[in-house]
Amino acid sequence: MELGFRLDRGSFQPLYVQIKEHLRRLIEKRLLLPGVKLPPSRDLALQLQVTRSTINSAYNALLAEGLVVSEVGRGTFVSGKAVPVSAPAREPRDAPESDSAGFMDWSQQFSRLGRLPEPSFWQGVEPYVLRPQTISFIGGVPDSALFPIDLFRRVLNTALKKEGKALLQYGNASGYPPLKRYLSTYLLSLGIEASERSILIVNGSQQGLDLLARVFLDPGDSVVVENPSYPGALDIFRSSRAELLPVPMGEDGLNRESLRRILQRQRPKFIYTMPTFHNPTGITLSADGRRELLDLAGQYQVPIVEDDYDGELRYEGPRLLALKGLDTSNLVIYTGTFSKILFPGLRLGWIVGAEPVMERLLVAKQISDLQTSPVLQAALFHFCRQGQLQKHMERIRKEYRGRRDLLLESLKKHMPSGVSWTRPSGGLSLMLRLPEPLSSLELLPKAGEEGVVFLPGPIFFAAGGGERDLRLSFSAVPAGRIEEGVRRLSRVVRRMISDYRHKTAKTQARERTPVL
Amino acid sequence: MELGFRLDRGSFQPLYVQIKEHLRRLIEKRLLLPGVKLPPSRDLALQLQVTRSTINSAYNALLAEGLVVSEVGRGTFVSGKAVPVSAPAREPRDAPESDSAGFMDWSQQFSRLGRLPEPSFWQGVEPYVLRPQTISFIGGVPDSALFPIDLFRRVLNTALKKEGKALLQYGNASGYPPLKRYLSTYLLSLGIEASERSILIVNGSQQGLDLLARVFLDPGDSVVVENPSYPGALDIFRSSRAELLPVPMGEDGLNRESLRRILQRQRPKFIYTMPTFHNPTGITLSADGRRELLDLAGQYQVPIVEDDYDGELRYEGPRLLALKGLDTSNLVIYTGTFSKILFPGLRLGWIVGAEPVMERLLVAKQISDLQTSPVLQAALFHFCRQGQLQKHMERIRKEYRGRRDLLLESLKKHMPSGVSWTRPSGGLSLMLRLPEPLSSLELLPKAGEEGVVFLPGPIFFAAGGGERDLRLSFSAVPAGRIEEGVRRLSRVVRRMISDYRHKTAKTQARERTPVL
Repeated sequence: MELGFRLDRGSFQPLYVQIKEHLRRLIEKRLLLPGVKLPPSRDLALQLQVTRSTINSAYNALLAEGLVVSEVGRGTFVSGKAVPVSAPAREPRDAPESDSAGFMDWSQQFSRLGRLPEPSFWQGVEPYVLRPQTISFIGGVPDSALFPIDLFRRVLNTALKKEGKALLQYGNASGYPPLKRYLSTYLLSLGIEASERSILIVNGSQQGLDLLARVFLDPGDSVVVENPSYPGALDIFRSSRAELLPVPMGEDGLNRESLRRILQRQRPKFIYTMPTFHNPTGITLSADGRRELLDLAGQYQVPIVEDDYDGELRYEGPRLLALKGLDTSNLVIYTGTFSKILFPGLRLGWIVGAEPVMERLLVAKQISDLQTSPVLQAALFHFCRQGQLQKHMERIRKEYRGRRDLLLESLKKHMPSGVSWTRPSGGLSLMLRLPEPLSSLELLPKAGEEGVVFLPGPIFFAAGGGERDLRLSFSAVPAGRIEEGVRRLSRVVRRMISDYRHKTAKTQARERTPVL
Repeated sequence: MELGFRLDRGSFQPLYVQIKEHLRRLIEKRLLLPGVKLPPSRDLALQLQVTRSTINSAYNALLAEGLVVSEVGRGTFVSGKAVPVSAPAREPRDAPESDSAGFMDWSQQFSRLGRLPEPSFWQGVEPYVLRPQTISFIGGVPDSALFPIDLFRRVLNTALKKEGKALLQYGNASGYPPLKRYLSTYLLSLGIEASERSILIVNGSQQGLDLLARVFLDPGDSVVVENPSYPGALDIFRSSRAELLPVPMGEDGLNRESLRRILQRQRPKFIYTMPTFHNPTGITLSADGRRELLDLAGQYQVPIVEDDYDGELRYEGPRLLALKGLDTSNLVIYTGTFSKILFPGLRLGWIVGAEPVMERLLVAKQISDLQTSPVLQAALFHFCRQGQLQKHMERIRKEYRGRRDLLLESLKKHMPSGVSWTRPSGGLSLMLRLPEPLSSLELLPKAGEEGVVFLPGPIFFAAGGGERDLRLSFSAVPAGRIEEGVRRLSRVVRRMISDYRHKTAKTQARERTPVL
């Protein structure tokens, strides 16, 4: 460790005091954390061009203040008990104030995107999630208890042993070629015929959608979105300052009549849709619906962005081809991800589209971050080639289907009448609707107190709405906890209903007072 | 493997022919690559709801055409020799045209960014780079022959064994906390005091700069850039439709007088600078220059973006603190990367800045790709904690210094008079200037023919210029090839000079003809 600081040799303060004060400040600011070893006095003396005894004096002074401990034969270490985390560090007048805004008025500097409010996704939920006894229906994520970690570790070793040099160097901007070739065959089962050239590997669907927004959207452009939809996508489109044109979701997917009325009046840059196990509703667009949607898009010459984040997690019913698999005019741009079928932590997804689109996306990808790391892509390729992905998908399909069934049964058993919910044939979540006039935002803190949390509807609705809705994600809740979670939730819902009836009765009683 | 396609049961074409034709098309389009195993006939029969003998007939027809081979007891495989790559696949009339633009007029759909020309970085160079005998001074990259691959493989195993579940799940959007804590101590040696909170992990410097552009730049804003500068950064700023305000590079870094004149007239959103071993010149801003730059920025209240992509690769001279280490007003935003000191393939870098900036960057990061994969971050943390990064840096510093010395000596020995070059005290590259009126763009194809390549000056200059300049990167050229590379380059330069003299002499001879 080197300490890049300058001594003031003209100061009245002895050098050893300057050194001690500097180190004290670093320790108090937790830049040198408990357990960190200070440099041997000889090294630091050389670095700072002072005598070794100057350093020893500084270390002794720190020792006297309990800020460091000395272990014979091992060295001097920052003390564990020394610094109360809240200790306000006293700053020398001219010290860099790394933790403050400094002297700059930043608010004047930011772009419009830089002034966007922070997505309020987690606000209000976090304190409850952190309690160990809370049952969380929040995360639309895979269960990490089912992760084949050792298998993945082995393919990582294979990949690095085989071609570590190439994988750790700069690589192919459009993705690791063998993985793209694998995907090209993988996608056939969805009816998608994608050559290696028409695939771009990205850091998960999120980056895929962000790149699409960059390539298609200028401020003032419009985008059709389902209402409700995935908030992460809505954030992207909003950050591009696009106008959102919401289309309501019907029982068999986005409402084609509403879409037609929009397309008759507007020229959106694209239609963003999740036709299979839609987030948050779990609804799947029917085969007829798919053809109608494609016809509409073709008729009005509007591209479709198909977000197929969890289409492979099908638990029942016939396999439907992806929109992209039915697309004879090549106007569908398809995004997929390994986040739900394998590991979110890989941050790996892909886009498939027409060549002119892929060319522009590649430029946007290079501007954004040059390329996705080849290391994890290569490991993933070996994992897939060994047939492990298919095996893992079979395993989690079975497990998640069981959890979905448990959730549906528990809801039926415990929820009071007036509450309804969707019945997804795959995916990670369902949507529940409370009876009038209950609100999911009001339910959330009460449920949190009771030890159960979910995501409230309004965060999914681009244009308002969803006040009575909430998303229950079942994939990451251990089977043994699902019924208890529903029991807790039902209890709070019943209480809210009865509180409401009580209040209404009172109001009505008051209103029954004759008006004279 | 499943094949998502539909049979037309009303067609005059027998089902087995439909299946055969479909598979033939997939093979010819290279969607089913040589060596891929076709599904067992029983499985495919089940998928397509036909009899097993229908599938067998289809497979036999493919066999007869040599498109597949059958191996007893193993199955049916796409044949290796069957398909000439250039065979034009005949498409059924209604087949998806995955490789073409389809029926959509995409050019009308793209955003302004989507219509940017592709960066022409590699154009013209690629054919020469691919020849094995070519000596390439192009890549400003580390030498993969020096990569500690096995050590890295081991820490990857450690990380996954310790906390695979967490690393493969969604993680912390701002980065893997232990890595951020490590960086906080690491940065002290540059005089930078960065708490864990003021660090954001990004996918390499490129993403760091892209996020900064998103947070600061609206169309029409301006940015000060050095002239020349890193083309990848210029591409980002251009894609944000910012105006570039170029400041010339002097012998001790960016010219402060020019900068002052710009700041007197304009309000740029920030100053983008590489003060240490600048790309492409290799020049380092002096200690005085650093203070002058900070004073100017403070006086005019303009933030500085300090790109310290290779500051740790110092071969001689005193260690200078980073601008960020001297910054008492917290107006410097610092970006660093592991790409040059370790592995580019990790795609890992970081940003340090004032809190209001970091808050906005975190939002932009979440919009862009949610978070950087925790897997490689955790491995890197273990690598650093074991002291391996420091060891590796010592090793490559020594090696690259040797290569720099060899390059300098070879240039001195072989280059004709009139050619000059910079003498970097660290980093990966130097800049060479040809005598008037030679052009590096004209030199490039001639040098390529001679078996040596480099990057021509103009791609680094935001506002024109650099015609006589070229960048020679020495870090990735094996020591034994450096002198030969310079010898080849010198030969071409000499020939160009003599050609020019010859042409001039001729012209002069013609001009000497008396005018009557």
